[in-house]
Amino acid sequence: MLHFESDYLEGAHPALLSRLLETNLEQAPGYGSDPWCESAREKIRAACGCPRAAVHFLVGGTQTNAVVIDALLARHEGVLTAVTGHINGHEAGAVEACGHKVLPLPQKEGKLSAAEVRRYLQQFYADESHAHMVAPGMVYLSHPTEYGTLYTAAELRALHEVCAEYRIPLFLDGARLGYGLAADGNDLSLPEIARCCDVFYIGGTKVGALCGEAVVFPNPSLAPHFFTVMKQRGALLAKGRLLGVQFDALFTGGLYEEIAAHGVRMARRLKEGLARRGVRFFLETPTNQQFVILENGELERLSHNVGFTRWEALDEGHTVVRLAVSWATREEDVDALLALF
Amino acid sequence: MLHFESDYLEGAHPALLSRLLETNLEQAPGYGSDPWCESAREKIRAACGCPRAAVHFLVGGTQTNAVVIDALLARHEGVLTAVTGHINGHEAGAVEACGHKVLPLPQKEGKLSAAEVRRYLQQFYADESHAHMVAPGMVYLSHPTEYGTLYTAAELRALHEVCAEYRIPLFLDGARLGYGLAADGNDLSLPEIARCCDVFYIGGTKVGALCGEAVVFPNPSLAPHFFTVMKQRGALLAKGRLLGVQFDALFTGGLYEEIAAHGVRMARRLKEGLARRGVRFFLETPTNQQFVILENGELERLSHNVGFTRWEALDEGHTVVRLAVSWATREEDVDALLALF
Amino acid sequence: MLHFESDYLEGAHPALLSRLLETNLEQAPGYGSDPWCESAREKIRAACGCPRAAVHFLVGGTQTNAVVIDALLARHEGVLTAVTGHINGHEAGAVEACGHKVLPLPQKEGKLSAAEVRRYLQQFYADESHAHMVAPGMVYLSHPTEYGTLYTAAELRALHEVCAEYRIPLFLDGARLGYGLAADGNDLSLPEIARCCDVFYIGGTKVGALCGEAVVFPNPSLAPHFFTVMKQRGALLAKGRLLGVQFDALFTGGLYEEIAAHGVRMARRLKEGLARRGVRFFLETPTNQQFVILENGELERLSHNVGFTRWEALDEGHTVVRLAVSWATREEDVDALLALF
Amino acid sequence: MLHFESDYLEGAHPALLSRLLETNLEQAPGYGSDPWCESAREKIRAACGCPRAAVHFLVGGTQTNAVVIDALLARHEGVLTAVTGHINGHEAGAVEACGHKVLPLPQKEGKLSAAEVRRYLQQFYADESHAHMVAPGMVYLSHPTEYGTLYTAAELRALHEVCAEYRIPLFLDGARLGYGLAADGNDLSLPEIARCCDVFYIGGTKVGALCGEAVVFPNPSLAPHFFTVMKQRGALLAKGRLLGVQFDALFTGGLYEEIAAHGVRMARRLKEGLARRGVRFFLETPTNQQFVILENGELERLSHNVGFTRWEALDEGHTVVRLAVSWATREEDVDALLALF
Repeated sequence: MLHFESDYLEGAHPALLSRLLETNLEQAPGYGSDPWCESAREKIRAACGCPRAAVHFLVGGTQTNAVVIDALLARHEGVLTAVTGHINGHEAGAVEACGHKVLPLPQKEGKLSAAEVRRYLQQFYADESHAHMVAPGMVYLSHPTEYGTLYTAAELRALHEVCAEYRIPLFLDGARLGYGLAADGNDLSLPEIARCCDVFYIGGTKVGALCGEAVVFPNPSLAPHFFTVMKQRGALLAKGRLLGVQFDALFTGGLYEEIAAHGVRMARRLKEGLARRGVRFFLETPTNQQFVILENGELERLSHNVGFTRWEALDEGHTVVRLAVSWATREEDVDALLALF
Repeated sequence: MLHFESDYLEGAHPALLSRLLETNLEQAPGYGSDPWCESAREKIRAACGCPRAAVHFLVGGTQTNAVVIDALLARHEGVLTAVTGHINGHEAGAVEACGHKVLPLPQKEGKLSAAEVRRYLQQFYADESHAHMVAPGMVYLSHPTEYGTLYTAAELRALHEVCAEYRIPLFLDGARLGYGLAADGNDLSLPEIARCCDVFYIGGTKVGALCGEAVVFPNPSLAPHFFTVMKQRGALLAKGRLLGVQFDALFTGGLYEEIAAHGVRMARRLKEGLARRGVRFFLETPTNQQFVILENGELERLSHNVGFTRWEALDEGHTVVRLAVSWATREEDVDALLALF
Repeated sequence: MLHFESDYLEGAHPALLSRLLETNLEQAPGYGSDPWCESAREKIRAACGCPRAAVHFLVGGTQTNAVVIDALLARHEGVLTAVTGHINGHEAGAVEACGHKVLPLPQKEGKLSAAEVRRYLQQFYADESHAHMVAPGMVYLSHPTEYGTLYTAAELRALHEVCAEYRIPLFLDGARLGYGLAADGNDLSLPEIARCCDVFYIGGTKVGALCGEAVVFPNPSLAPHFFTVMKQRGALLAKGRLLGVQFDALFTGGLYEEIAAHGVRMARRLKEGLARRGVRFFLETPTNQQFVILENGELERLSHNVGFTRWEALDEGHTVVRLAVSWATREEDVDALLALF
Repeated sequence: MLHFESDYLEGAHPALLSRLLETNLEQAPGYGSDPWCESAREKIRAACGCPRAAVHFLVGGTQTNAVVIDALLARHEGVLTAVTGHINGHEAGAVEACGHKVLPLPQKEGKLSAAEVRRYLQQFYADESHAHMVAPGMVYLSHPTEYGTLYTAAELRALHEVCAEYRIPLFLDGARLGYGLAADGNDLSLPEIARCCDVFYIGGTKVGALCGEAVVFPNPSLAPHFFTVMKQRGALLAKGRLLGVQFDALFTGGLYEEIAAHGVRMARRLKEGLARRGVRFFLETPTNQQFVILENGELERLSHNVGFTRWEALDEGHTVVRLAVSWATREEDVDALLALF
């Protein structure tokens, strides 16, 4: 059986496990105040070009989204997102459980446009009864998106501008950020993201770590009590070292970039191979998730040998299927998969 | 510098790390459906003598308390606890952030008595205006308590009886459960706990794991949607294997009992040594936390060589100090600590 | 200036004020246990043909929606509604503030169809990952809808059937229920609504009362702790008599039906008059809200003499405008309005 | 039967009902933007000596407490109160349902002292682990308290000082404020309260209105989005005129003071009469609630002829009983009550 269901099929990159092993019996204080967390913070600040940034390590993506959004929104505010945004459909109402409405906007290939956000904000404030409605208090976007697509630098800057104009924070969910940074045609860098976003996170779980997401506030004054909100929401690890050691390793010697680049190479190999075999794509994506359209009989046949995700029904006879690769995917498995088509 | 600040100063027991390493590149599905989680569940069910139990793996203690309490309480209900209960003072309002009041009751050495719980419930329902008040919807207790003390089997059964009489669940927070089971004079076993409690958890973070708490519902019908509540509260790990592998190792070959017993031995060595040196104890505890009374000058002197926790001021001149040992504490460090007195 | 902005422009029907005056200095217990509340409950039970119903009086619509939804949903559940449902856009996120997601569905003239609800529920449970998503835990509909339209008995029964099939409650927001019951062509009665819905409310604020909504649970065991949830959400009046006296008066001698019928007559007069003058309607509605399409110059001109609500922009040059009448609207004002077209 | 159970046994002062009747059919916009609300706001601003104050009208006390506290606290903050504070025990967890912990402090006759608040704040910030705990984000006090007692101007100023020092708002729940202002020995005025408190409310429900509490923010910038939070929490009346008309009447011609003074006179008559008959008082209070100690046989005997509230058991044989009078209490009823002792 071949496995392309997700990008969290394996444990951690061996280098991270090695460092966990090496540091295992060193004694260190808890809750993120250990030396590895501190070292990882410094390396992340350097990589992002923002030496004053506040950097916090959380455990997983749904948790990180909820804690960041809850920490930044006022009581009467909600969060704007593409209707396909992960927070809108696939996080079991985590944002709403914190008391905030998710305000869905139209999307294109998983992306939100600055024009759409501006239109919403303009209409909202033009509506005489807007004080009876949830105030749009921040913009959430995922990069890469749930469809594996990427924002360009120009698009992100435009989103930054509209957010700055309306004085609401821009939050980038980077659960798969590594694959975006390594993608062909990408023109965004960590420093550029740090310039455009008020808060973002660098995903570890899907890019080489056992778990962990590194939240970056370029301006540390934005969420002075974030630590306590983490604690309140059960997002603070006693042994924060588990996250610190891993992020310290990921940001040492370019490991994060390197392993993400491997994932992107595997995706390219898969994409090109499928294209050669005439497989139809649902959309074009340069990152580690590929969305193909399978005839339902074909899908049934393949499902005996390959694990994948049924994304949605396209029509009566066809289904959109997601094939995910990662830092851990082996070339031979990609080739074996291709051989099945 | 000697470190006795907490029981989470080191990483994981080496056997757990070895298993993480061995299984690292095996591919497995996420969210707790991997084979290690399944194996760990079976072993925990066997250890608890409840073959039908639902077992869920969460990441840390504050998170586990909030998710369990939120999953079991109705909208209008709160949770009874000793005023010293961890949920009341040291979890940043995690339970209240889920919308539920923590109802504090008087305690003795960190323990809640069945008589106190019964008195509260009787008075509550005798009060004509009780429909204007938060209904007591469950009982929370920690075992060992925040003061390292233990419930006897008779005490736990009495609490079970009053809960059963009022049809509210009894929840045992076992963040340090291993040390309780291994303690001198303990007369509680996992099966007995499973008989008395509607839900409890077996702590990993403080007993040999990098992170992880195993929640056990002896009757699986009590919280049928617990998985979704975990997801909603950000408590569901994508790579659930991280928890499954560790708990599987802890419940293989008696490791959990063995390493907890080491912690208890270290505590005994510390306690007896301190007693011989005439150190006063704040209270008597058979588990891995020892609470001693230090004259403030002595405390100041020791603080240059030892890390510990200032628990509370006893009077103008004295402070209650907590010294914590664990599965990882070395005999030589205990002896070095004793030599300082 | 003529006022057609809303159906809550005046105070209460004089008969209600008279009763408030007559009973004013009689002493009575608080919180809905006074004799007028009890009498009103009996009359409402009789009108609904459900002698065992639990009847609660709340203050306003947003409050009632949030309290009912919060009382009925489990932690992990959300509420299905037409995307145009009042709870989705115009209640400032009251449902989300209670921790629950509003799940918007496509609508037609403000109405939700049983087919749409069934499709959602089928797809939801067919999705392998539905345990990661908000469970659809109830269906909300407003009747009349936000567009003044009505469900037929057949439509409501079909919604009841799909809810019963999936064992989720059906909740009907009857803020303007009187106007629906009095409308031409209506084939729903209070007993039929009580048979189809698990909970519904009979609006007072918009149908003759100063404030007040009467929530009816035909089966009183559905929400045994509703009183405490009301209290918790600030929806319990100390002087519940204010609501009891008014609902008692409304349900005495057919007053509720009578004054709603007046509102419907005024709406018909307005509708027929506008039609004769060639005004275009956005949609056809038999109740007290009429939606017309005005050319923007015309709208500007009228706005000097008439108050109305700009509902939405239809296109560059036209706007949908709502004209609301009520139990209190005077025939001469309708005629004066018509004279302006 | 004589009724001394509460101070909300009757409807409204007749002058308020008259004004409701007179204005009943005047058309006015909703949600507090009607002319009576505006007029009432102006009169309240004048009475409080703060011409820029934001004034909002809410419906009842529990609702007002929860909305004010929720609007002012940040996510990680809780509210300090006397353990006997209404928000702590008798509001069904309304504050916690908004996600915030109520932090109870020791009290004396229902009052919180500045020294106690300072001690808590000092200890909190001295605790190294305070970032793991709920931050004390505001101080709540009721005046008169739940025991009918009053703060002196000096005490309130001292509370103001400690709040200002720690930069947290001071919130005064004035559900019975009128009786406090009219009490013998009172040295607080509305302007002094407005100088000391960041937010307070002037109770209507218990001082002559059918319902309604007027929230005053002397500095309007403290809660700029309070209107939307009101809406979100179901506290915004469509027919806000119901509250505006009543408060406008209460603050016209000194009516509020006058009727509260009547309540205080009735309380004095009751208190003096009881004292002459040798009845023991639980504590001394100058306002409209009197707390007496009854031998249980006596209590049983009286309960056939008088309605009162059993406050708490004093000992095996005695009970603390509350007797409440109000603006509506008749002298002859007080005398009839006295005749029973």
